[in-house]
Amino acid sequence: MNQEFSSILLETAVTELSRLPGVGRKTALRLALHILRQDESTGVALGEAIVNMRRGVKYCSVCHNISETEMCPLCSSSTRDKSTVCVVESVKDVMIFENTRQYNGLYHVLGGVISPMDGIGPDQLQIASLVDRVKAGDVEEVILALSATMEGETTNFYIYRQLGTLPVKITQLARGVSVGNEIEYTDEITLGRSLINRTLFADSFNSR
Amino acid sequence: MNQEFSSILLETAVTELSRLPGVGRKTALRLALHILRQDESTGVALGEAIVNMRRGVKYCSVCHNISETEMCPLCSSSTRDKSTVCVVESVKDVMIFENTRQYNGLYHVLGGVISPMDGIGPDQLQIASLVDRVKAGDVEEVILALSATMEGETTNFYIYRQLGTLPVKITQLARGVSVGNEIEYTDEITLGRSLINRTLFADSFNSR
Repeated sequence: MNQEFSSILLETAVTELSRLPGVGRKTALRLALHILRQDESTGVALGEAIVNMRRGVKYCSVCHNISETEMCPLCSSSTRDKSTVCVVESVKDVMIFENTRQYNGLYHVLGGVISPMDGIGPDQLQIASLVDRVKAGDVEEVILALSATMEGETTNFYIYRQLGTLPVKITQLARGVSVGNEIEYTDEITLGRSLINRTLFADSFNSR
Repeated sequence: MNQEFSSILLETAVTELSRLPGVGRKTALRLALHILRQDESTGVALGEAIVNMRRGVKYCSVCHNISETEMCPLCSSSTRDKSTVCVVESVKDVMIFENTRQYNGLYHVLGGVISPMDGIGPDQLQIASLVDRVKAGDVEEVILALSATMEGETTNFYIYRQLGTLPVKITQLARGVSVGNEIEYTDEITLGRSLINRTLFADSFNSR
């Protein structure tokens, strides 16, 4: 559909909006016309927030999480436990773990998982920098917190091999029945793992 | 969900993006992280396009279509037929009619249709300015091109009454079977109208 725009400014905005994931040209036009119907200040605030974010947000030189400074607030915090590093796939996963409020260590953002199908090998990920970080000494435990998928497990194993000779404890997230899920609808592999790794019942209310 | 953002710039962008229609906080975060993964120039271009559009786009003083100048390119064009005015609901409808390449007159954008349910009365629409435009003299035909809904028909009738005493021809879009549609799935009212308003078969290929 080749739209007839009476404004080159509108056309440019529609073109840029349609580059967003899941936004086609029709949706982009709908968004642009919505922005035009709003107050000028609202539309300007949106545009400026995007520019400021893209210009201002960098990546932490230690954990590769997004940051506005050379080192992110987590890595430079004096209250976080620097001996534990949780290896996650993405910036979003850091937010998700932070939301649990159950973790006080640091992170290491890989930027993805090994996936030959998508052409992603270990070199495209922040694995070498993780090894360097462990070699530097302070890290006592590396928690592998990648997705429980084939690619995640492959990446876990690759990292395990890379860190193998270093004096560091390597753990992974517990596999088990999701809280709120019915046994009937839990797959057999998960159930098997949850049996093997069963925990003391008393611990489940003591740890709250 | 109260996300833990490690960057105030990211948080601001997510907040602004989540004001868009159909964009929740989760989608806004997905969009923001996508923008961060792209080249800096791509993200900045998006933000600046939105700011420039919102600041630069005004409404035509004659037809109320969007315009970058006091009078839009259509109204100020010397090749358009100024004696015909097509009354449409929105800026988007102007684009849709322009895309048909079947119309060479001018437009009048109402900004909606009369809808008591949504609290939209004639005063919130550009109906008075349409009447003024017709009173000014040059207009010979007003084409009512609103949606074939209850609200559209009500608005058509209201405009018809307002223009009633003025020396102007008032027409409306033909109602009939949609091109490509099967008779079996066309509703009875439309079929009835398409019988009453049947046209000469020869005209259907002569007019192409």
